[in-house]
Amino acid sequence: MRRFISHKVKNLITKTTSYTICSSSSPSPSPSPSSTAALRFLSTLQPDLMATPITIDTINPKVLKCEYAVRGEIVTLAQKLQQDLKDNPGSHPFDEILYCNIGNPQSLAQQPITFFREVLALCDHPSILDKSVTHGLFSADAIERAFQILDQIPGRATGAYSHSQGIKGLRDTIASGIEARDGFPADPNDLFLTDGASPAVHMMMQLLIRSENDGILCPIPQYPLYSASIALHGGTLVPYYLDEQTGWGLEISELENQLKTAKSKGIDVRALVVINPGNPTGQVLGEANQRDIVEFCKREGLVLLADEVYQENVYVPDKKFHSFKKITRSMGYGEKDISLVSFQSVSKGFYGECGKRGGYMEITGFSPEVREQIYKLASVNLCSNISGQVLASLIMSPPKVGDESYESFSAEKEAILSSLARRAKTLEDALNSLEGVTCNRAEGAMYLFPRINLPDKAIKAAEAAKTAPDAFYAKHLLNATGIVVVPGSGFRQVPGTWHFRCTILPQEEKIPAIVTRLTEFHKKFMDEFCG
Amino acid sequence: MRRFISHKVKNLITKTTSYTICSSSSPSPSPSPSSTAALRFLSTLQPDLMATPITIDTINPKVLKCEYAVRGEIVTLAQKLQQDLKDNPGSHPFDEILYCNIGNPQSLAQQPITFFREVLALCDHPSILDKSVTHGLFSADAIERAFQILDQIPGRATGAYSHSQGIKGLRDTIASGIEARDGFPADPNDLFLTDGASPAVHMMMQLLIRSENDGILCPIPQYPLYSASIALHGGTLVPYYLDEQTGWGLEISELENQLKTAKSKGIDVRALVVINPGNPTGQVLGEANQRDIVEFCKREGLVLLADEVYQENVYVPDKKFHSFKKITRSMGYGEKDISLVSFQSVSKGFYGECGKRGGYMEITGFSPEVREQIYKLASVNLCSNISGQVLASLIMSPPKVGDESYESFSAEKEAILSSLARRAKTLEDALNSLEGVTCNRAEGAMYLFPRINLPDKAIKAAEAAKTAPDAFYAKHLLNATGIVVVPGSGFRQVPGTWHFRCTILPQEEKIPAIVTRLTEFHKKFMDEFCG
Repeated sequence: MRRFISHKVKNLITKTTSYTICSSSSPSPSPSPSSTAALRFLSTLQPDLMATPITIDTINPKVLKCEYAVRGEIVTLAQKLQQDLKDNPGSHPFDEILYCNIGNPQSLAQQPITFFREVLALCDHPSILDKSVTHGLFSADAIERAFQILDQIPGRATGAYSHSQGIKGLRDTIASGIEARDGFPADPNDLFLTDGASPAVHMMMQLLIRSENDGILCPIPQYPLYSASIALHGGTLVPYYLDEQTGWGLEISELENQLKTAKSKGIDVRALVVINPGNPTGQVLGEANQRDIVEFCKREGLVLLADEVYQENVYVPDKKFHSFKKITRSMGYGEKDISLVSFQSVSKGFYGECGKRGGYMEITGFSPEVREQIYKLASVNLCSNISGQVLASLIMSPPKVGDESYESFSAEKEAILSSLARRAKTLEDALNSLEGVTCNRAEGAMYLFPRINLPDKAIKAAEAAKTAPDAFYAKHLLNATGIVVVPGSGFRQVPGTWHFRCTILPQEEKIPAIVTRLTEFHKKFMDEFCG
Repeated sequence: MRRFISHKVKNLITKTTSYTICSSSSPSPSPSPSSTAALRFLSTLQPDLMATPITIDTINPKVLKCEYAVRGEIVTLAQKLQQDLKDNPGSHPFDEILYCNIGNPQSLAQQPITFFREVLALCDHPSILDKSVTHGLFSADAIERAFQILDQIPGRATGAYSHSQGIKGLRDTIASGIEARDGFPADPNDLFLTDGASPAVHMMMQLLIRSENDGILCPIPQYPLYSASIALHGGTLVPYYLDEQTGWGLEISELENQLKTAKSKGIDVRALVVINPGNPTGQVLGEANQRDIVEFCKREGLVLLADEVYQENVYVPDKKFHSFKKITRSMGYGEKDISLVSFQSVSKGFYGECGKRGGYMEITGFSPEVREQIYKLASVNLCSNISGQVLASLIMSPPKVGDESYESFSAEKEAILSSLARRAKTLEDALNSLEGVTCNRAEGAMYLFPRINLPDKAIKAAEAAKTAPDAFYAKHLLNATGIVVVPGSGFRQVPGTWHFRCTILPQEEKIPAIVTRLTEFHKKFMDEFCG
């Protein structure tokens, strides 16, 4: 009997479930919330179904509390539909799933930058560097760069653990790149190279959060890595709301109010997270605003955690990216005045090398004693992956005028960025043309975050279906069009408002069809629920 | 005045400090404990030296508590000596530093396996795959394998985020490799690919530890990742002592006694860590012993966390590696009987690809609900690096008889493993020939962990120098010979006993000189302190 039920449960899991964060991966069985409930039920019936010791009720409650919305119900459904289309072509009113849920450019056919990949390949297999035939396959400056990089690696050992902060020579290169970007000095010893930016964010949260009485100011809407990391480390997210009316403006008065409220509840607010360009909101901060933010952090004794991973993704001529490091230094503030951490990643920009897991944080304004502790945290995990480290150095030091690859590199870069700008504008205009939808400009990053004013009937239908109204809308959109977006509720939003996040990443030739499908769907949805 | 003191402090830091976990990296300024003390003192004098908010007294105390001994005072000193030798050749009685402190084979000139690197390079730059000249540079089976792997990656996008557990096709390959190793089925959905094994260990600790009342049974001596991870997650390390007299034997009675003691203190012991082959102790568990360990875990309701990263590193004919998965399955225990996690890494074995940060954990015997939570933890960090994922698939599925690379691959593998075995034996014999030193066999892994019976005079001198006696010995060894080992106190040991960990990784041609230098030093040391 037990064997039979085990088998049934296994089938149930395999059949009803499969989700993943990634758009294009093959589905693999992982339980969805609904199947979890089913399993809970079955477990109640058969308490000895699993005799193993760990249950959902005895794991770390911080893990349970943590949420990561970029995956979730909608993506689970998308993968089910994708499988349907594969098994029964024509079974849905669309013939492919369009994943607009995650900033994963190469999963949507964006090609990697040739020069970067040439250098990576040569560093992976250096023994071909000395062979003449290699010159027929790789550009001369890629070969030269690979030699330079290998010379910077002790023993040319690309398979050895590096210094826990990353290979010193690569940090020198990145520091030079930061100096060139900002016009102010950067110290390679301030850099910690990490497997993407996420581990760097976790490291800072781990350092700063002692208990639930420690708070971190985060923008709302926010990228859910922040809420997840704060939950995992047992702290409190102190929200500050971006002002949708002023293009997701960041108002100092709002920061002050929220800080005051948090303090009145006994929360010790330790840091301010700013995401610039914004995720999921796509705005680019103005310089004056950035200076005010710096003054606020200095005045209130907050660490400024600057998520600057979209620094290369600015699409409008009237906005420009300025790093907070540049802003603080241009205000005359140095090492002893303000604690600042800047996060950068190889996953975004025009390169979009998400799978390479490269990134860094630049930390300034921490005492040597605290830096020692950050170093210790880095050293427990030994080092980040060397290919990611190499790539982080390449994005901060791309080919220059006169290099053999310069023209082709510039053409690849320009083609990607100008196409992203066109796609952003087209989608933004299309969204704004829909009844009851308003969408701020996509000034930067890779996302649009339109607001949808849903009819009461739709809100009631969502309530009846026990789902958030924007998730209800997103589910209908997916079922009708194959377009996958993330409901705004996953990023948090002003209560009573509804949004979704849509990336600007689908291939440009697919954008017109997306616009058409979206427009048709929206009209039908409004017709259905406005009655 | 403030500026002046700032400058002085900066000089102090730069001059007196620099440590790193990595043997061969360039030193970078990070404060040593002594300079930290100096800074604390100066900070007291000048409280406004740093006006920034975060101090050593206000960071997360779990971070302060965490220790990672593989770096530390001895390595700091080694790097200072290395710089001395560079600046003033001949300034010390040796002409190079021999890093025997860390299992980082390629930093000591071990060459990567050619086939693995060919495939990695081709996957990094797939556009050369179709060019005929590529066949002159790469072996045919590497090209074929790269094509196979690319076909397993959705959209052939090696730069995209993958499924949070890792690319499904690569997990299929790894599961087949596990099946071939064990003779029992393995499920790709049980695999979580990670950036080396360390993040997998952290993930399990994060899942299992709720508070300091949760305990994890760990071997003593242990690899300090475990104590560090338990400290960071706020749990309690429950020690069990390996029996040095019986070749670092793992006695079930010791497990039972320690479990009982922990329970009597109110500790809820949740898991047992077993490192096989042992780090730092180098022993390989026998099958009967493994079965007893499985029974113990089952009886006591403990998760078995099996660190099996040295599974390819066995050097003696009378021992063989058996995975705990194979042992449990051969005992008739399945999914519902025991919770087992096996950790594997691309950093060890004969490949030693530490810098690639590849690895996986295979989890069995967890309920679907708990698996969902583990999946969520993995998804917050998106995915591990794709090159590391590819390499994890390659180590579990190397070239086979008939493949073009098979012979050269086998020759490379055999040369490395047989040389490691010879080096282990030579060093073991040399250590055992020293007065007052006993050293168990290096049956596996990459380390020897000799016991040194230090004379009372040396112990008193160490006490006077406020250092552990084995650290005192290691420091003298380094100053006299340039050989870097890690004091046993960093791994914990039976109180009153003293050891050091020495890797077997220096190049084989350097081993005789190491033996000579070690022998001469030891004799002098004993002569000096036995008087």
